[in-house]
Amino acid sequence: MKESGIDSQKIIRRKRDGEMEYQPDDLTIEEPLEIRIGRKALATTMRTPGHDEELAAGFLLSEAIVRKRQEIAEISASRGNVVAVNLAAGVKLKLNSARRFGTISSSCGICGKESIEAIRQDFPAIGSSNIRIEIDTLLSLPALLRKHQGDFARTGGIHAAGIFDIDGKLKIVREDIGRHNALDKAIGRAFLDGLLPLDRHVVLVSGRASFEIMQKALAAGIPIVAAVSAPSTLAVSFARESKQTLIGFLRPPSFNIYSHIERVILDHEL
Amino acid sequence: MKESGIDSQKIIRRKRDGEMEYQPDDLTIEEPLEIRIGRKALATTMRTPGHDEELAAGFLLSEAIVRKRQEIAEISASRGNVVAVNLAAGVKLKLNSARRFGTISSSCGICGKESIEAIRQDFPAIGSSNIRIEIDTLLSLPALLRKHQGDFARTGGIHAAGIFDIDGKLKIVREDIGRHNALDKAIGRAFLDGLLPLDRHVVLVSGRASFEIMQKALAAGIPIVAAVSAPSTLAVSFARESKQTLIGFLRPPSFNIYSHIERVILDHEL
Repeated sequence: MKESGIDSQKIIRRKRDGEMEYQPDDLTIEEPLEIRIGRKALATTMRTPGHDEELAAGFLLSEAIVRKRQEIAEISASRGNVVAVNLAAGVKLKLNSARRFGTISSSCGICGKESIEAIRQDFPAIGSSNIRIEIDTLLSLPALLRKHQGDFARTGGIHAAGIFDIDGKLKIVREDIGRHNALDKAIGRAFLDGLLPLDRHVVLVSGRASFEIMQKALAAGIPIVAAVSAPSTLAVSFARESKQTLIGFLRPPSFNIYSHIERVILDHEL
Repeated sequence: MKESGIDSQKIIRRKRDGEMEYQPDDLTIEEPLEIRIGRKALATTMRTPGHDEELAAGFLLSEAIVRKRQEIAEISASRGNVVAVNLAAGVKLKLNSARRFGTISSSCGICGKESIEAIRQDFPAIGSSNIRIEIDTLLSLPALLRKHQGDFARTGGIHAAGIFDIDGKLKIVREDIGRHNALDKAIGRAFLDGLLPLDRHVVLVSGRASFEIMQKALAAGIPIVAAVSAPSTLAVSFARESKQTLIGFLRPPSFNIYSHIERVILDHEL
């Protein structure tokens, strides 16, 4: 297929020496996914195709539409960018909640609520536990995530979320053009496998930590959230309230701790 | 204010040598903004406070709620994270459209639509014109944007959108935790100043180019869109259809051209 004399399957690259050349068009796929409850459209999200059932499950969990695995009876394999969830008999969909969603962009986590008050779900704060992570374990996570994340290095346009156990063993990694979707997919997988709460786990996201990232992690009961880039102010205040440990700029050998430092085993006194 | 023995105005940083130290808490502010039409809540967006009136104007434009400057009678100064827009007498708000919006995360551009078909607005494609940009001009844009973008270097958590004329002169730059908001603010300023269509201008965004970035630029009539990072597949296909020139990975001396190369004055034959 040609357009304007350009092979539309290729892009044109200006190289460092100023020469121009054709290159294969190697981009991260962004397509809409409509999430339905039965036949009713609940939300449309811009995502990278793949693991759509997990995305739907993670979305329903982090939006507090379902809270327990058994509340989902079935999730259809996605077809034509539509995935349908059947709730278990007796599980009622609050229509007021459903109405609040709409189309969600590839980096959107909390779209579709009509008022500021509606943003926060009422997930309980992380309980006190003696879960603590070694600094060396924390520092090992970015390389482990990258190792399993082939696509990012190639296209530079895809995010990842990895769930690790407290010893730094990677349990689930998912990728998506949107970092919220990547986290929904990873959490959705754990949710569908009946592994929640992930109260002895750490999640690492490849980008920034927003308020929604913290809330999604809290929905899964994850006590320690690490991000390769910066957190927002709201992410930090949320983490402090929800008793989550928030690590930012995790770029070995450095990182920042924004909340609940007691879960990090320090090798140096402050 | 103390919490868990930590000064909540400070963060803890692990330095490269392994020592831990307190640092000032220097984060990008993320707060919700409710956009109202009159007294009716239209959408809530997670944004960095500042230039809220521009954000509201750019949002209304890129969602095709208004198309001409005179359709907006007044925008109140934002108070308590609420900004209210009064439409001009006779301008009707399509309630079906309004109902589709909800809360929009800091990186969300097309939230709040109930079906896949509703994502695309019907902005006309860019008309044929003889607007062309020199490669040296294109290569100069990232440094100009960074020069005006003090916050990004400091916090690493804020995006920028800059509107330049075809000779590379920076006309408007706006920053926000969300790249879509940054673009809405920049376009909103131009819209409020009666400068649309920006058919002799280039926009540069500091992050990736999604479908929504292209659509917002198209709403303002911008023929050339450049991004520091990767475009998505949908951004490229949208750009090809809308006759926008899309430049990605603009990292001098290199860049990629994904569509409508005819607006770039090549110094080397292909």
